Amino acid sequence: MDIGFVGLGNMGSGIAQNLLKAGHRVTVWNRTKSRADALKQFGAGIAATPGEAAKAGIVMTMLADDKAVESIVYGESGIVRSLPADGLHISLSTISVALSERLTKDHHDAGQQYVAAPVFGRPEAAAAAKLFVVAAGSPGALDRCKTILAAIGQQTFIAGDIPNRANTIKLAGNFLISSMLQGFGEAFALARKSGIEAEKLLEILTGTVFVAPYQKGYGSSIARGVYEPAGFAASLGLKDVRLVLAAADAAGVPMPMASLVHNRFQAAVGRGHGEKDWSVIARLAAEDAGL
Amino acid sequence: MDIGFVGLGNMGSGIAQNLLKAGHRVTVWNRTKSRADALKQFGAGIAATPGEAAKAGIVMTMLADDKAVESIVYGESGIVRSLPADGLHISLSTISVALSERLTKDHHDAGQQYVAAPVFGRPEAAAAAKLFVVAAGSPGALDRCKTILAAIGQQTFIAGDIPNRANTIKLAGNFLISSMLQGFGEAFALARKSGIEAEKLLEILTGTVFVAPYQKGYGSSIARGVYEPAGFAASLGLKDVRLVLAAADAAGVPMPMASLVHNRFQAAVGRGHGEKDWSVIARLAAEDAGL
Amino acid sequence: MDIGFVGLGNMGSGIAQNLLKAGHRVTVWNRTKSRADALKQFGAGIAATPGEAAKAGIVMTMLADDKAVESIVYGESGIVRSLPADGLHISLSTISVALSERLTKDHHDAGQQYVAAPVFGRPEAAAAAKLFVVAAGSPGALDRCKTILAAIGQQTFIAGDIPNRANTIKLAGNFLISSMLQGFGEAFALARKSGIEAEKLLEILTGTVFVAPYQKGYGSSIARGVYEPAGFAASLGLKDVRLVLAAADAAGVPMPMASLVHNRFQAAVGRGHGEKDWSVIARLAAEDAGL
Amino acid sequence: MDIGFVGLGNMGSGIAQNLLKAGHRVTVWNRTKSRADALKQFGAGIAATPGEAAKAGIVMTMLADDKAVESIVYGESGIVRSLPADGLHISLSTISVALSERLTKDHHDAGQQYVAAPVFGRPEAAAAAKLFVVAAGSPGALDRCKTILAAIGQQTFIAGDIPNRANTIKLAGNFLISSMLQGFGEAFALARKSGIEAEKLLEILTGTVFVAPYQKGYGSSIARGVYEPAGFAASLGLKDVRLVLAAADAAGVPMPMASLVHNRFQAAVGRGHGEKDWSVIARLAAEDAGL
Repeated sequence: MDIGFVGLGNMGSGIAQNLLKAGHRVTVWNRTKSRADALKQFGAGIAATPGEAAKAGIVMTMLADDKAVESIVYGESGIVRSLPADGLHISLSTISVALSERLTKDHHDAGQQYVAAPVFGRPEAAAAAKLFVVAAGSPGALDRCKTILAAIGQQTFIAGDIPNRANTIKLAGNFLISSMLQGFGEAFALARKSGIEAEKLLEILTGTVFVAPYQKGYGSSIARGVYEPAGFAASLGLKDVRLVLAAADAAGVPMPMASLVHNRFQAAVGRGHGEKDWSVIARLAAEDAGL
Repeated sequence: MDIGFVGLGNMGSGIAQNLLKAGHRVTVWNRTKSRADALKQFGAGIAATPGEAAKAGIVMTMLADDKAVESIVYGESGIVRSLPADGLHISLSTISVALSERLTKDHHDAGQQYVAAPVFGRPEAAAAAKLFVVAAGSPGALDRCKTILAAIGQQTFIAGDIPNRANTIKLAGNFLISSMLQGFGEAFALARKSGIEAEKLLEILTGTVFVAPYQKGYGSSIARGVYEPAGFAASLGLKDVRLVLAAADAAGVPMPMASLVHNRFQAAVGRGHGEKDWSVIARLAAEDAGL
Repeated sequence: MDIGFVGLGNMGSGIAQNLLKAGHRVTVWNRTKSRADALKQFGAGIAATPGEAAKAGIVMTMLADDKAVESIVYGESGIVRSLPADGLHISLSTISVALSERLTKDHHDAGQQYVAAPVFGRPEAAAAAKLFVVAAGSPGALDRCKTILAAIGQQTFIAGDIPNRANTIKLAGNFLISSMLQGFGEAFALARKSGIEAEKLLEILTGTVFVAPYQKGYGSSIARGVYEPAGFAASLGLKDVRLVLAAADAAGVPMPMASLVHNRFQAAVGRGHGEKDWSVIARLAAEDAGL
Repeated sequence: MDIGFVGLGNMGSGIAQNLLKAGHRVTVWNRTKSRADALKQFGAGIAATPGEAAKAGIVMTMLADDKAVESIVYGESGIVRSLPADGLHISLSTISVALSERLTKDHHDAGQQYVAAPVFGRPEAAAAAKLFVVAAGSPGALDRCKTILAAIGQQTFIAGDIPNRANTIKLAGNFLISSMLQGFGEAFALARKSGIEAEKLLEILTGTVFVAPYQKGYGSSIARGVYEPAGFAASLGLKDVRLVLAAADAAGVPMPMASLVHNRFQAAVGRGHGEKDWSVIARLAAEDAGL
C-alpha cells in the first residue's frame, strides 16, 4: 500500500523501515530532514511537508507529544487539509485523550477516517517489529489498518470503535510502568541502606514474582544505577503522566499513585535529570535516602 | 529428618504436608488444635506445646505476625527454651526486620541456629510445593536447611548470612505487589469511568507488558471486582506495609509509595474491608471515583 | 463612577451592593436574571448582555470558573468586543493563570486595560466589604481601580504589574486553606479515634497555635461535622486545586501536598459530596478512619 | 515548692529558670553537667542523678525523645524508683502516646502520680514563660500542678484525666505545624518560579488569611530561605511525625498528609539537612522545583 509516515524519531524510524520491509511504498516526512534522508536507502520517498505525505491516502504519525501532533495535523499544509476524502490517519503517538477526541471529530468532519493506534515497546522493539499495538476506530478503518499494523508489531489489540479509548489504555499502561519504576526505586533504596546488594535484590525479585520483561529490564538499570542513554526520557515520562492525570481529572478519578509519580518526574526534571531515562526517578529515591 | 512445625494456617498446612510427603517426620503444633489434628491422617505427630515441637531439633514456624511469633518463641514452653543446643529454627513467617534481628541474637545466645526463610507464594503455591524461598543465615545453618526448603518450594534464593536481610527482601517484595494492586486499582477506575470494559483493559495489559503471573491473577480479581474469599487479607497487607515502613524508617529511607499503599490499606480496614483480599484496595480506588 | 458588574452569585451580589452603597452607578448582568433584578431595589441598572454592562467603561466580573469567564468575555456580545477603547476590565474571579494571561493579551490588543483582582474572603466578608483584594496590572490601571477596590474590601494588596501573578497568589492561598482542611481532618480523626472530644481538640488548637480566623471557622465546622450549607463547594475547591496544579505543572514545580488535596477533593466529589462545603474532605478523613 | 527538673536543653533551661523566678526551690539534673551548673547562679541545686532530682517529690522532665525519657525514668537511679510514694512526675516532653501510657501505668503501680503536660512554643517562648501547656492526668494531680504550670506558660489547657491524650493533642499540633511548613514550601516554590518575589507573597499571605504568629514566623524564614540556626531541628520534626504516624497506626487512622510530611523530613535528613530547622523541608520543595 501507499503510506505516508510522519515522525522519524527513535520509534518512528524503526517502524517506517518495517513498513518498507513489508513491501509498502512509504513516503516520509520529519521535521529534521536528515532523519528522513537516512531512510532513502531503504526505499522511502521524501515528502516536503506533512500534507504531502498524507497525499498517499493513508498516513501514519509517530510524534513526541500533543503539540507536535497538532503542528503537523492542522494548518495549511497539515494532514487534515491534505488527506483525501476517505483517507485514513493512523496515529501511533502517545497523546492526550482530549486531542484524540478532537482528531476523531475533525477527521470525521473532513470525510476521513482516524484510528488511534498507540504502541507499547521501546525503540528496539520498534526496530524488530515486536511492538504491541492497541488500536481503536471504526470497524472499516480498523480493517484497513490490519496488514499495516501487523507489519510493525507482534500483536494488535482492538480496543473498540471509539479511538481515544486506545489512548486511555496506552496512558494507563505507561502509568503502570512508571509506578513500577518508583516502586523499584524505593525498594532498592531500602535494600541498599539495609546492607543488601542491589544485584542480589534484583536476582530475587525478578527470579520469583516480578518476572515480566519490563521489570527485568528496568530492574537491571536501577540495580546498576545506569540511566543513560535514555530509552525514554524522564521529560517524556512527565508528559505521559500529565496526560494520565488530565484524563483522570476529566473522568473524575482520583489517582494518588499517578500523582505521586507525576511529582517524582517533575522533581527529576527540576533536579536536572529530564534528559535521562525515565527510570531515573529511582535515583531520586536513592538520593532522598542519603545514598 | 525430624522436624517440628508450628503454625498451620492457610500457608502452613500445605507446607507441613509437603514435608510429610517428602518423607520427613513432622510434629506439628497449632493454636487451634483441630487444624493440627487434621494432619494426623498424613502422618503428622501432634505436640502439646510449641516447645514440644521444637524438641525435634529443627523447628519451622509459619505464623501471621510478630506477636504470634513472639508468643511461641518466648516463654516457659517456647521455642528458645525448648530447642536443643545446636537446634535450628527456620522462620518462614513474614515478620519485622527488628524481630528477626532479635531472634538472631537470642538463638545465638542460646547456642542455637536461626535461619530466616520467608516465602513468596499464595496458599495454592504452598500446597503445590511451588513457593519461592528467600533464606538467610550462617552457611552451616543454610546447608542444614537445604533439603527441607527444597521440599516446600520450587526454588531457594540465598540472601546472605545475616538473617534479617531475607525479611527485608520479603517485605520489599510484598510492598511491590501491593503497589501494583493500587496501580491496577487506579488504572481500572480510570478505564471504567472512560467507558472501557474492565475485561478489555485486563486483556490488553496482561497480553502486552504486565505479563507476570501475579499481575494476571490479581488483575483478573480486580477486573471482576471479586475480593472474597481472601487469599491474603487486607489486614495482613496493612501489617506488611507497616513493617516495610518500620524498616524504612529505621534505615532512613523515604518511601512515599509505600506510605500511600499503607494509607490505602488503613482506609480499607477503616471502611470495613479488612477481611477481604488485599486487592480490595482496588475497590477503594473505584469507590473514590464514584463507581 | 459608572461600573458594569457581571456575576451575582454568593460573592458577587454582596460586592455589587457595596459598590452601590459607595455611591457608584452600577449596571449588573447575571445569567439567572432574577438575581440581577433583586439588586434593582438598591439602585442597580440591569444590562441585557455582559457586553451592555461593559459599555459603562469599567466592568467587573465575579464568576465561578474559567468557562464562565470565557463565555461572557468572548463572543459577539462579550466584554472584549463591547468595552470601549481605554475601558477597564477588573476580574475578581479565581481563574487559571493561563486564562488571566490570555485576557491580558486580548484586552491589550483591543486597546483596553485589564486588572486581575481576585479576593480572599467568604460570602459574609463580601457582604461586609471585608474582603482582601490582591490586584495586579499596569500602574495606570491599578490607579483607576483604587477607589473601587477600596469599596469592596478591607485592604488591597498590589502584586505587581503582570496581572496573572495575582491569580497565582490567590491560587496559592486557596491551596494553603485547602491543605489546612485536610490537615485538620486528619488531626480530628486521630483525636476522635483516640477518645478525645473534637470540641476539646478544637479549643486547644485554636487557643494556642492555630489562631487565624479561617482556622477557627473551619475548625469549628470540622469539629461539629457540619458541612452544609456550603460557603464554598467542594466541587469549586477541586476546580481551584486543579488550577494550582496546572500552574505548578506549567512552572515545573512538584506540589505533592497540592496533589494530595486534589485527590481528596476528587474523592469527595466521587463519593457524592461535591455540593457540600469544601471542608467536607475532613469527613472523608473520618470515614477512612472508620468513624 | 520543691521541684526536681531533668533536661536542660533549649527548652528546659528557660523553663527551669522561670520556676526559680517564681520562687520554687529547683534541683536540676542534665546529662551534660555544664548546662546544670549554668543554673546555679539563679539558685538551682544540682542533683547527681535523675533519681536524686526526683527526691523533691515533684519532678518535671523535658527531654528530646522517648529514649531519653526512658533512660532517666527507668533503672536503678531512675525517677520511678526514686520518686517518693505520692510523688508527682510532670512530663513536658513530646513523647509517644505509647510511652505516656506506659508511664501512667508504671507510676500508678508505684503509688505515684503522673501528668503529661507537653507544651507548645519555641525556646524564646519557654524563656519568656509564654508557653501553652496541654495537661492531662487525674484531677488531684492536675490540681497539684496548677501553680507550677502557671509559672512556665501563658495558659494551661486541661485535656482530661487520661495523660496520653495530652500527648496525642501535642503530636496533632506538631503535625499541623509541619504540614504548614510543607504547604508554604510548595506555595513559595510555585510563586518564585512564577516570577513572584517571595517577600511579596509573604506580605500578602500573612496580611490576609494566614495571620497566625507561627505562619508569620516560619513564613519569614521560608521567604528568606534561612534555616539556620535551628529552633527545632528537622531530625526532631521527623521524630514527631513518626510518633504521629505511630499513634495513627495504633488508632487505625490513615493520615496521608502526615505520611507526606514524614517522607519529606526523611528526605531532608537523607539530603543532609537533619540539623537545620525543620522548616528546611521548604528548601527541599524549592530544590525539587529546580530553584
